[in-house]
Amino acid sequence: MSETSLPAPTSADVARLAGVSRATVSYVLNDTAGGRVSEKTRLRVRAAADQLGYVPHAAARSLRAGHSGLVLMATPEITFGPLFNEFFSELRAGLRDHGYTAVLYGSRADLSGREIARAWAELRPTAVITGVTDDLSPEGVEILRRSGTRAVLTLAAKPVSGAHALVLDQSEVGETAGAHLVARGHQEIGVIMPTDPTLRLFSEPRLSGVRSAATPAGARVEPLDLDYTEESAAALAARWRSLGLTALFCYNDEYAALLLAAFHDAGIAVPAEAAFVGSDDLMLARLLRPRLTSVHVALPQGLFLADLIDRLIREPDAPLETHRVGTATITVRDSS
Amino acid sequence: MSETSLPAPTSADVARLAGVSRATVSYVLNDTAGGRVSEKTRLRVRAAADQLGYVPHAAARSLRAGHSGLVLMATPEITFGPLFNEFFSELRAGLRDHGYTAVLYGSRADLSGREIARAWAELRPTAVITGVTDDLSPEGVEILRRSGTRAVLTLAAKPVSGAHALVLDQSEVGETAGAHLVARGHQEIGVIMPTDPTLRLFSEPRLSGVRSAATPAGARVEPLDLDYTEESAAALAARWRSLGLTALFCYNDEYAALLLAAFHDAGIAVPAEAAFVGSDDLMLARLLRPRLTSVHVALPQGLFLADLIDRLIREPDAPLETHRVGTATITVRDSS
Repeated sequence: MSETSLPAPTSADVARLAGVSRATVSYVLNDTAGGRVSEKTRLRVRAAADQLGYVPHAAARSLRAGHSGLVLMATPEITFGPLFNEFFSELRAGLRDHGYTAVLYGSRADLSGREIARAWAELRPTAVITGVTDDLSPEGVEILRRSGTRAVLTLAAKPVSGAHALVLDQSEVGETAGAHLVARGHQEIGVIMPTDPTLRLFSEPRLSGVRSAATPAGARVEPLDLDYTEESAAALAARWRSLGLTALFCYNDEYAALLLAAFHDAGIAVPAEAAFVGSDDLMLARLLRPRLTSVHVALPQGLFLADLIDRLIREPDAPLETHRVGTATITVRDSS
Repeated sequence: MSETSLPAPTSADVARLAGVSRATVSYVLNDTAGGRVSEKTRLRVRAAADQLGYVPHAAARSLRAGHSGLVLMATPEITFGPLFNEFFSELRAGLRDHGYTAVLYGSRADLSGREIARAWAELRPTAVITGVTDDLSPEGVEILRRSGTRAVLTLAAKPVSGAHALVLDQSEVGETAGAHLVARGHQEIGVIMPTDPTLRLFSEPRLSGVRSAATPAGARVEPLDLDYTEESAAALAARWRSLGLTALFCYNDEYAALLLAAFHDAGIAVPAEAAFVGSDDLMLARLLRPRLTSVHVALPQGLFLADLIDRLIREPDAPLETHRVGTATITVRDSS
């Protein structure tokens, strides 16, 4: 690879080739020229940069243009289901339409909260959206803001001091499932608790939600640990009749699919012997037989969120905003 | 937000507070000190930076330390299934263990190949892995390398001149499915073609793969367009018996689940009237009834790939490497 031994072209090389000053090169390539540079000169500078393969540095550009245009999305290291994948994909497209570059940044389990904020800040993002509020302290928000991040937005159960918040209350998911089952007369309700530790962030508030709907109605709620394996599902099916339960909130649709296959193989009738409720209302819920009753979570549209982020970036000193998102409703099908 | 009106702390502020030179601050915070700075001084510099909330700039650090440590993963804007999600998640963890920061960069349908390479180059990544070779030209590889990217690696059906390549041949997936069906005596084989245009990258080579296995055996292959909707699946089930086909390669397991529900509802026996083969061998394949025969694609382990990338980064002038990945085998279950 002989190219690697050539020195990288600099803005001085571009200036020389185009016959302009380095300041003019900087104005043109960083889009900070305003009306100061003629169209003809712009074209000449761009042609020279193209010819030499010169690329301005995003970071240097951020110093001059005022911001990098990077929107850093920090996500916990869990395998997202289809619901969140679609959400992130829409958000990414919405941000792109606003001229930002969305980058997904994996969590760093090896770093403390302060260190992770610093690692994010090193990229000089214009905005940070994080679903990992465990990692983000008020001090972390300040580190980001002092390094130039204009908007910090959390997507979690609780706001973090200093940051804008999209409040996504997972307990509402459980409450909606519990209220439905109680209304159908169930007084003995099992709640699937995935043993995958990365899912506790979701499963624990969902369990409390089921409890908060069931307890006032005098119903009993029993948490049931489950690995995401056929063996674990078969073991639960084998002891189902000894548990004295009549209904099951399955954590989500994918766990419900796993359990439905096991209950089918064990000859346990759904919903007669076990009413099933899933969550996320995926396409999968409609493909199962019996079709699965599922909690529908309305995440905000990517375009709405991109508009919001764009506005927060443009008004970095505006008061903090809190938006409730992810309203839960129940889609009743044949399994409950 | 009163913090935003304070000027961001600089390395000069840190130097003043710690009572050292700016060069020493730079050595310590950018980990380029080697043995030149005592542990006591290091601690004092770090404490001063902490107290002031000073964060070095990744880009500036990359100039001094030689590289940014960013590994940019450019992915097409498609909704990945579980197989790729798990792959990316493992790769991210593997890179983190090597001290790199993996960032996922969405595609930019609005940019040309040269512009996208330049947009990536602006982040000064140490390495770029791309699954979007349509976007990457040999010229794009050169733009990246001249801006300091040490390794460019493609994950696609074909290598790109100048870049290392992981060759993932989707036609092998179709060939494996076709060979299995032909061996079971099928001579009339339908192949599901998702209408989702972002999936053509996968569906077209899979179709040619089925053809290359079926044609020498004298079998007929018929492509069948399908939306990922229950309506489209029900419509195909309704005309199934008129098509004269005996087997179906379903594109992947998720499309197979959609079709299996529709065929079940239409009273078409699987495998007696329609042998089904999926692809990706997800957990879902084991949860369907009948259990789904599926093509298993062995993607490289994230740790293996992280080791490879680390080595390529350390040897930026070594010869280009090509690795075949994603060997396809068939997992036979009850549906075929």
